[in-house]
Amino acid sequence: MPRLVLIRHGQSDWNLENRFTGWWDVNLTALGIEEAKAAGRLLAEKGFDFDQCFTSVQTRAIKTLNLALEEMGRLWLPVEKDWHLNERHYGGLTGLNKAETAAKHGDEQVKIWRRSFDTPPPPLEAGSEFDLSQDRRYAGIPIPNTESLKDTIARVLPYWESRIAPVLSAGKQVVISAHGNSLRALVKHLSGIPDDEIVSLEIPTGQPIVYELDDALQPLDRYYLSER
Amino acid sequence: MPRLVLIRHGQSDWNLENRFTGWWDVNLTALGIEEAKAAGRLLAEKGFDFDQCFTSVQTRAIKTLNLALEEMGRLWLPVEKDWHLNERHYGGLTGLNKAETAAKHGDEQVKIWRRSFDTPPPPLEAGSEFDLSQDRRYAGIPIPNTESLKDTIARVLPYWESRIAPVLSAGKQVVISAHGNSLRALVKHLSGIPDDEIVSLEIPTGQPIVYELDDALQPLDRYYLSER
Repeated sequence: MPRLVLIRHGQSDWNLENRFTGWWDVNLTALGIEEAKAAGRLLAEKGFDFDQCFTSVQTRAIKTLNLALEEMGRLWLPVEKDWHLNERHYGGLTGLNKAETAAKHGDEQVKIWRRSFDTPPPPLEAGSEFDLSQDRRYAGIPIPNTESLKDTIARVLPYWESRIAPVLSAGKQVVISAHGNSLRALVKHLSGIPDDEIVSLEIPTGQPIVYELDDALQPLDRYYLSER
Repeated sequence: MPRLVLIRHGQSDWNLENRFTGWWDVNLTALGIEEAKAAGRLLAEKGFDFDQCFTSVQTRAIKTLNLALEEMGRLWLPVEKDWHLNERHYGGLTGLNKAETAAKHGDEQVKIWRRSFDTPPPPLEAGSEFDLSQDRRYAGIPIPNTESLKDTIARVLPYWESRIAPVLSAGKQVVISAHGNSLRALVKHLSGIPDDEIVSLEIPTGQPIVYELDDALQPLDRYYLSER
């Protein structure tokens, strides 16, 4: 039967500083590295194995995957890296921490951006230090200048349908190392979670989430691997 | 113009112990890790960049690539891993160090295996602890039980022609992280080195070798990046 494991990257420098990160490419902290290794060890201990890996083009997710695979003795597995699995783009909030954001935009407005399904933050300003238009990895890609969670889901799901679901439908075992919001997109889709609930569903870092699926990719079971 | 960079993996545990390794999957030493990072830093300093990466399915080569790419801020590049780039299979010599090999087979015989282009070592014995037939990564793959350098070249070159050369012919920049003998295969092919000379051509660990190529993939220049 197809099996899917989702891993949110370990703690990043900006998780630690409580800053909106989005598409900005920050690294894992020492704790984040340990979380990634622990995820790999747990997967190996529980007898998990994979046929195909997917990740974003962001260092923190790729490195989490590589560290986990190394612990599993599975660095040799094929890995597809794609921007569709990137974190939600936080637009003009990129780089701000929560206190700065509240000071700049007000508590109420911040609450709306954080809790709304379809209201994007203001766009990234032209000339921002966080502008990615000169980053080679995004050449030819329609880089968003902000995204609501709804927008993120709208670009994750076509990738799921075209690249990931066919591998699972062939009965393979798949691991995806990605981000809080790109994984929310997949959990919402697979578990049928309503718009107003998915915004507050927290996906912990470095905790493998397992989906046991039937042949039609309907979930038979979803659980945190650490709880089994 | 197409550009190709070859990197032999950093020092491995069995390089250090002077043991024949071949397809056995040993890890990098602390020095090997540093060599890989230094290669990445050198590539970044010299302004090198890549479109596509290739490596074997052996941990020491994959890890060398990952460490170098991380230093370059290029973990997001596509990586194809394939057994055709694996090290030469050393058959029954796998796991032996040079002193053990000489004691077991005699100095003259060892010299022949080490210096001959087309004489393979004895095959890996059935039931050897180094047997890989149960290793998932080689499922469906014709695992050799020994190889001469000629045999190694015979399986590297079709992969070069089918997967790597087309990328270079499209004007892309390619890096290959692999092994002493799979890289000898490529250097012999590209630089037209005779059979009796290629066996003694030493490829140092962690030293990027650069090929500047013309559109027909004929070498215009070949050099160690550390010497420019």
